[in-house]
Amino acid sequence: MSEKLSAELIKQLSKIVGKENLFTDPGDCLPYGYDNSRLQATPEAVVFAREHDQVAGIVKLCHQHRIPLVTRGKGTGTTGATVPQQGGIVLSLERMNRILEIDRENRLARVEPGVTNKELQTALQQQGFFWPPDPTSAAVCTIGGNLAYNSAGPRAVKYGTPRESTLGLKGVTGSGETFYTGVNTTKGVVGYDLTRLIIGSEGTLAIITEARLKLTPLAQTKRTLQATYSDIHAAAKAVSAIMGQPVIPCALEFMDKSALEMVREFSDLALDSSVGALLMIEVDGAEHCIADEVTAVAQAASVEGLIDIHTAETKEEVAKLWKTRKALSPALRNIAPKKINEDVVVPVSRIPELIETLENLSKETGVTIVNFGHAGNGNIHVNLLLDPDDPKQLAAGEHCLNALFELVLGLGGTLSGEHGIGVVKRQFVDQELDPVELKLMRSIKQQFDPHQILNPGILFPD
Amino acid sequence: MSEKLSAELIKQLSKIVGKENLFTDPGDCLPYGYDNSRLQATPEAVVFAREHDQVAGIVKLCHQHRIPLVTRGKGTGTTGATVPQQGGIVLSLERMNRILEIDRENRLARVEPGVTNKELQTALQQQGFFWPPDPTSAAVCTIGGNLAYNSAGPRAVKYGTPRESTLGLKGVTGSGETFYTGVNTTKGVVGYDLTRLIIGSEGTLAIITEARLKLTPLAQTKRTLQATYSDIHAAAKAVSAIMGQPVIPCALEFMDKSALEMVREFSDLALDSSVGALLMIEVDGAEHCIADEVTAVAQAASVEGLIDIHTAETKEEVAKLWKTRKALSPALRNIAPKKINEDVVVPVSRIPELIETLENLSKETGVTIVNFGHAGNGNIHVNLLLDPDDPKQLAAGEHCLNALFELVLGLGGTLSGEHGIGVVKRQFVDQELDPVELKLMRSIKQQFDPHQILNPGILFPD
Repeated sequence: MSEKLSAELIKQLSKIVGKENLFTDPGDCLPYGYDNSRLQATPEAVVFAREHDQVAGIVKLCHQHRIPLVTRGKGTGTTGATVPQQGGIVLSLERMNRILEIDRENRLARVEPGVTNKELQTALQQQGFFWPPDPTSAAVCTIGGNLAYNSAGPRAVKYGTPRESTLGLKGVTGSGETFYTGVNTTKGVVGYDLTRLIIGSEGTLAIITEARLKLTPLAQTKRTLQATYSDIHAAAKAVSAIMGQPVIPCALEFMDKSALEMVREFSDLALDSSVGALLMIEVDGAEHCIADEVTAVAQAASVEGLIDIHTAETKEEVAKLWKTRKALSPALRNIAPKKINEDVVVPVSRIPELIETLENLSKETGVTIVNFGHAGNGNIHVNLLLDPDDPKQLAAGEHCLNALFELVLGLGGTLSGEHGIGVVKRQFVDQELDPVELKLMRSIKQQFDPHQILNPGILFPD
Repeated sequence: MSEKLSAELIKQLSKIVGKENLFTDPGDCLPYGYDNSRLQATPEAVVFAREHDQVAGIVKLCHQHRIPLVTRGKGTGTTGATVPQQGGIVLSLERMNRILEIDRENRLARVEPGVTNKELQTALQQQGFFWPPDPTSAAVCTIGGNLAYNSAGPRAVKYGTPRESTLGLKGVTGSGETFYTGVNTTKGVVGYDLTRLIIGSEGTLAIITEARLKLTPLAQTKRTLQATYSDIHAAAKAVSAIMGQPVIPCALEFMDKSALEMVREFSDLALDSSVGALLMIEVDGAEHCIADEVTAVAQAASVEGLIDIHTAETKEEVAKLWKTRKALSPALRNIAPKKINEDVVVPVSRIPELIETLENLSKETGVTIVNFGHAGNGNIHVNLLLDPDDPKQLAAGEHCLNALFELVLGLGGTLSGEHGIGVVKRQFVDQELDPVELKLMRSIKQQFDPHQILNPGILFPD
């Protein structure tokens, strides 16, 4: 815990950003003390930077006085990484929200970190491009946050994550030094790859003040397919078959039996009781190829155990196919508003083993477990439907989480595919990372942030 | 320079790897003291590791005794990164050459570092996959070397470099500690991305003893196009237009006017004198789409200044179209066997400016400069045709190199796209990297390799 900010320090902050970009009233600060993790802590001050030099000035000050500095975008993270548990200052980058350049010829955009994902996509769309990462929170979340967490979404299965779509960064280290990483081009091998080292580091190494993003041309058109299967084995086999042929879908999402039961129970959708797993598949491409591409994917999806496969032709049909998947979220919110949502990843071929073991765990503990997510990457959202405010349910949930993480690592998977570690998973990290790897990471952290002021208390286990 | 290896140390090395995996006779050691850079230094010993634990043992020994340890694959690098300038030991990984696993369902291969690129591609092809990196030296170069340099080739324009196609590593740090990085899956955000940090670090951070590679399904078919233009401006405009539409070619190579003149002069190919630039374009895809994809690319390539565009239909026609490009290398070898070959990168839209300035530089200095390469990435092989053994020519060459690097950086480019830094470019590195970035890289090096024994004397400027 830092000492209370002195009046002198507040004055210096105000000098850097101006009064209108500084909150010190606890009532004003409170909304900057939580994210989407249910964790909360009120910072002693909130500063809004409008330009790089202000960020550098703020970090220098915090470095000098060893004040915790938590950087955030719009607070849509789910792991508490931007919750100022050790007090200190929250630095919001939401006002550094300019798209500085869209360079069509070189397929490059330069942006400030506070631009929202959606604002960027809208601007790019007009030029025939997109930036691949598409988290569910795209309308709200910022590019800076996407880079900090290496956030992805359904499209990652074809187009990758921020690490595959970022060329370079400008930023400030934990001691307030300005640096540049990377290149303006799609190739470059001069020195170590600090760009990707910083992407996904959850703000613990440096503060990104500008990013050069690699753009991808928009496909001409897209088709949506829905395939239903008797069980998860058949669906997982289909996923492997789809991923093993050259037409990679731009979304390959799945729902397990418990997710389908949830929808049966809480919506008026007629869903055949024989359906034990469902895939939503999207294929994008050129107008003249799309029909054949859909055929190739549908063929791959047609494994033993397939019940039905539909391709939507019109907008209305697309909406209809997505109805089952979209009915899931309100159903889950309804039954367990405080559910625990994990985002583990396992090799695609191990999905059935994951789901079956979770089914058994659910029976054993009485905790309803609902699974859906990005099957093409093996990135499964495991939802524990419980009330964490009930100590008994919480204990059962913790037991399930421990079992889940052990299971995932045993299957050759990873604890998180897109949400990151933050506070909530940090005590599990050393189950996945080996001691030498973890030691190297800590030593790198020390080089970037010698006084350990940037987003302290996250990512690393105690 | 290290002290001479003691008899005791040689004995210990022999104990680790066995007599049959150790050279100490200078005659035996000599062929392991050079690469494709024309630099040379004879190591005091060459050891061949056959398994991870041997590598760890060797590094521990060298760490303890502060002996320079230069790791190499097959020595196809062009920058002297594996030349043991400070003496010590060369560790060859060419005998760690097993493909440990090809996991079709999860699109993953596990390999030892000494597997050649071609051996891997051949094995993968039988399963319907490939690994994207395709350096010209694929028949000889090793996966370990590809990872160390982040080597790419023509296919990178569509499929990326090793950094986009590697999931995780096993390795040994400079103090002999074993570590694992990354995941088995296409997503994973637990901790810092050490995988990509190590890829492209030219063996200075750690020795890779095993890699998990991400596989890509082979396209069904491929078509080859050749387009000729009146000048480099027209060709560069075509490159931008091609890269701005959704059908990304799997190769987009170019030859400039001086390269074409070289071919005119030294081959019997009839090449219209109006042609001032040439593009070789390859498009891959599904059988049923390829014709339309070729049309889309050909349309984009048809900018003002286009002289002619051909698509090959048969194998013979493909070979015929590649003839011009393939005639270039023997012509260059013929006229300047010791030519200097740089691999700078500039934003695609700046290619004309680069080429024009080089034309002027050539006139000014009398050094013939021939340019060709991977236009889709802006990665241009700039060849200075001179004899470096002639001091006057060498001086002119050095003047050209200085001017080239300054030009490239001024155009927003980078000094190397795929060859790396090694010894030959290290004194230019601080022209590209800013001091803070360079300081961070040095401090990371220090964490991985505290006694600075791994491939010493490369990558960083003095």
